Amino acid sequence: MKKIINDPANVVDEALAGMAAAHADLIEVHRDPHYVLAREAPRRGKVGVVSGGGSGHEPLHAGFVGFGMLDAACPGPVFTSPSPDPILAATMAVDAGAGVLHIVKNYTGDVLNFETAAELAAAEDIEVEAVVIDDDVAVRDSLYTAGRRGVGGTVLAEKIVGAAAERGADLASLAALCRRVNANVRSMGMALTPCTVPHAGKPTFELGDNEMEIGIGIHGEPGRERMPLEPANAIVERLLAPVVEDLPFGSGDRTLLFVNGMGGTPLMELYVAYAHAGKVLAQRGIGVERRLVGNYVTSLEMQGMSITLLRLDDEMLDLWDAPVQTAALRWGR
Amino acid sequence: MKKIINDPANVVDEALAGMAAAHADLIEVHRDPHYVLAREAPRRGKVGVVSGGGSGHEPLHAGFVGFGMLDAACPGPVFTSPSPDPILAATMAVDAGAGVLHIVKNYTGDVLNFETAAELAAAEDIEVEAVVIDDDVAVRDSLYTAGRRGVGGTVLAEKIVGAAAERGADLASLAALCRRVNANVRSMGMALTPCTVPHAGKPTFELGDNEMEIGIGIHGEPGRERMPLEPANAIVERLLAPVVEDLPFGSGDRTLLFVNGMGGTPLMELYVAYAHAGKVLAQRGIGVERRLVGNYVTSLEMQGMSITLLRLDDEMLDLWDAPVQTAALRWGR
Repeated sequence: MKKIINDPANVVDEALAGMAAAHADLIEVHRDPHYVLAREAPRRGKVGVVSGGGSGHEPLHAGFVGFGMLDAACPGPVFTSPSPDPILAATMAVDAGAGVLHIVKNYTGDVLNFETAAELAAAEDIEVEAVVIDDDVAVRDSLYTAGRRGVGGTVLAEKIVGAAAERGADLASLAALCRRVNANVRSMGMALTPCTVPHAGKPTFELGDNEMEIGIGIHGEPGRERMPLEPANAIVERLLAPVVEDLPFGSGDRTLLFVNGMGGTPLMELYVAYAHAGKVLAQRGIGVERRLVGNYVTSLEMQGMSITLLRLDDEMLDLWDAPVQTAALRWGR
Repeated sequence: MKKIINDPANVVDEALAGMAAAHADLIEVHRDPHYVLAREAPRRGKVGVVSGGGSGHEPLHAGFVGFGMLDAACPGPVFTSPSPDPILAATMAVDAGAGVLHIVKNYTGDVLNFETAAELAAAEDIEVEAVVIDDDVAVRDSLYTAGRRGVGGTVLAEKIVGAAAERGADLASLAALCRRVNANVRSMGMALTPCTVPHAGKPTFELGDNEMEIGIGIHGEPGRERMPLEPANAIVERLLAPVVEDLPFGSGDRTLLFVNGMGGTPLMELYVAYAHAGKVLAQRGIGVERRLVGNYVTSLEMQGMSITLLRLDDEMLDLWDAPVQTAALRWGR
């Protein structure tokens, strides 16, 4: 196992210490239990927005804590859900009387632990709404998940809902908006290589020298098909066709196209994929009005990518453009 | 070779097409010869700032074209210098009568081709100054380079000088500022894995399962030492000690600490390294006032990192904080 780490048991703690030191203007890292809190939270009258999940997907979620996106993130151990304790602590820390929205990726452990935390928060008179993101069209059920997995769509939901929360939307409106984003977003991923979880010390799966896996999950969960490696354009079409057909997206739709790297994929390759994805969508009459290209929802050092497509309406588009200041996304405050 | 590409011969072109489509608000990509031009360039009265070099180090340099950084970038083939033609074309395109600054990484081909382009520009009555960045302390001479290589310090020079150009500094002042940045910045890198140049199809070098290379260049050029893998903290100390001792940095210095990934390194590992680097500097009385953590000067999918330290003065600090809007760095415009 080749990694720039000290002790596999401490890698999340040490990475959070680095984040705390690097981004002290944006976040503070709390310990026992662990959560990452926006420097300005809680803010009176503002609904708190909290997400979280296993670590190893950085910058998701801690890299999106700050202004205009998340108020707190709960990072679990690598590829393992955070327990209810830190979720409750984060929920209490961001509550300013207007309630708290939980944005939860659809993995069984995450969903259960966020639910438990929400019940405990209710006992403390904190109103919590939870929205489960399940945008991955690859497989119906999977290792760790009943129903579809939550992947790239989560970043878009966090940005759009976070912007609405900044503008003072109430909890019910934010939950409705988050559900609307989830209802209009679809994703699918693929991998060229596996990744190695530090405490496991060996790759999560094996792929032949000339093989790729289509429809893979962000923890290396099996996808739709293992097959010979193809050119970038063919890969893009394999990911994009089921994404487009699932919603379905259609001619005249205005979209946000998100080409996401799995962590070990060079930016150059993501732009090669983006170029072709835009052409394929144009052929179908689907307009790309906004985009995101980069490594945002990763699987440690896995090489591969996912494509996420969001059907935008005027409100989502306006909220996407709103100022954001976080470690991993920032513009225009 | 596992990559998300179509044809190794077209990978740079296709990636640039993707960049052009994704960032049409910031840049336009010109062909025959190839260069990436800021959407707003040329601007009357403003000195043009141009950089470039072999591709495969993305987001360097095209990802830094826009507002407050570069006016143009000249991407060569993968790991190969751009020829004088595109450099001349970019220089002419950004010139608005106030002259053009070339920021050149110290590789023999880059230096020669930028020099030739500057001579050709002079024949067109365009005043050009060139500053060569040579911040890598690892080795004195190297494959492709007489003297020290230019690496991470280039990003910091482009940001600081770009901000000064935005504020209307003249060519001589910008060149002096760029030399001052170069005189105060030092870097060193390491690799856990090699990378594969698309048209070569095989790794640039071999590293054993438990080996790392300290002092490596961004094209996989040999470094100081190949040795058994060590924990993150020991690696950080191996990179930071020669960086600090070379300038030397000393107690009371205010610095910008840049922990850069080589392309295939997860963000989590870069934050682990950042945490320890900050501690080591604090022990020496060196203050970290600004920082950058991420994959900014890469070697395709290489796993590894470099550490860059810049001694800040008040002017550099103020220029670092100035607004910037590019594909890869953006804040506060």
